[in-house]
Amino acid sequence: MTPAVGSIARRSRTVSRRDIERFTELTGDRNPLHYDEELAAGTRFGGLIVQGGVTSGLLNAVVAEDLPGPGSVFLRVAWNFLAPVWPGDEITAEVEVLEVHPTKPVFRIRTTITNGDGVVVLDGDAHVYRVPLGSGDDLGATAGTEQHLGATAPGQRQH
Amino acid sequence: MTPAVGSIARRSRTVSRRDIERFTELTGDRNPLHYDEELAAGTRFGGLIVQGGVTSGLLNAVVAEDLPGPGSVFLRVAWNFLAPVWPGDEITAEVEVLEVHPTKPVFRIRTTITNGDGVVVLDGDAHVYRVPLGSGDDLGATAGTEQHLGATAPGQRQH
Repeated sequence: MTPAVGSIARRSRTVSRRDIERFTELTGDRNPLHYDEELAAGTRFGGLIVQGGVTSGLLNAVVAEDLPGPGSVFLRVAWNFLAPVWPGDEITAEVEVLEVHPTKPVFRIRTTITNGDGVVVLDGDAHVYRVPLGSGDDLGATAGTEQHLGATAPGQRQH
Repeated sequence: MTPAVGSIARRSRTVSRRDIERFTELTGDRNPLHYDEELAAGTRFGGLIVQGGVTSGLLNAVVAEDLPGPGSVFLRVAWNFLAPVWPGDEITAEVEVLEVHPTKPVFRIRTTITNGDGVVVLDGDAHVYRVPLGSGDDLGATAGTEQHLGATAPGQRQH
């Protein structure tokens, strides 16, 4: 089913020091801001912070699991990292459908992540393409009456 | 030392199925495009792909390890995901300093990731803030003569 403009989904997760290590295993990022407690305590962050990719990763989960749902991939993201996220923070990622492409399963979504104190730690938007997943998937056939993405519609992914 | 406009750094990494699992552990993203071989083979991607966050994560490593270097965090990213990345691909992330803030350790950088065939799989730009890391770090004291970031300079991170 094609999500309607205004549809919202959210997902929460408590980030941890183990996530910092996982992100390092994934990327090679050994920034001392994430490992050197004494040094991090002396910065404006006042302690170890998690990598931005740990924070934004929760948005991957929301789009792939919830809205638009399985088969979704980011075509474009424009994200502002507004405040630090510390291990132990519970963050909540929220997605709202802003535009639906008239003929393709492409969506522009608002992306917002807040911490447990209600501080917005990430905001911005993204374009998502939901790959059709077989014959039971009617995406792309029913979006004709939705709001037009206009000039912001991204190109299709290359092969 | 403050990186100069035009400075370039790059870093390569072969992505794997294990990275897909690591990203799932980190986020909860269990998109079938990353796990269901038969289903993924039937999509335009022709097989399992890695999450976009696995690909872009290599940029975290380049900025934190190489340029601008330790203490760097993203303030803003604007990334286009242009082509799929499959497990086994060797990807190369490249960063080039485009602008240096005249008074703060803030940089605008070009961000590009290519695969082993030279196909650009991600492009865009980012603003990076390099947190001063103690008295031996002269960042922010020497950037006065560099190109002005102008209206694109981001606000400082909130506490």
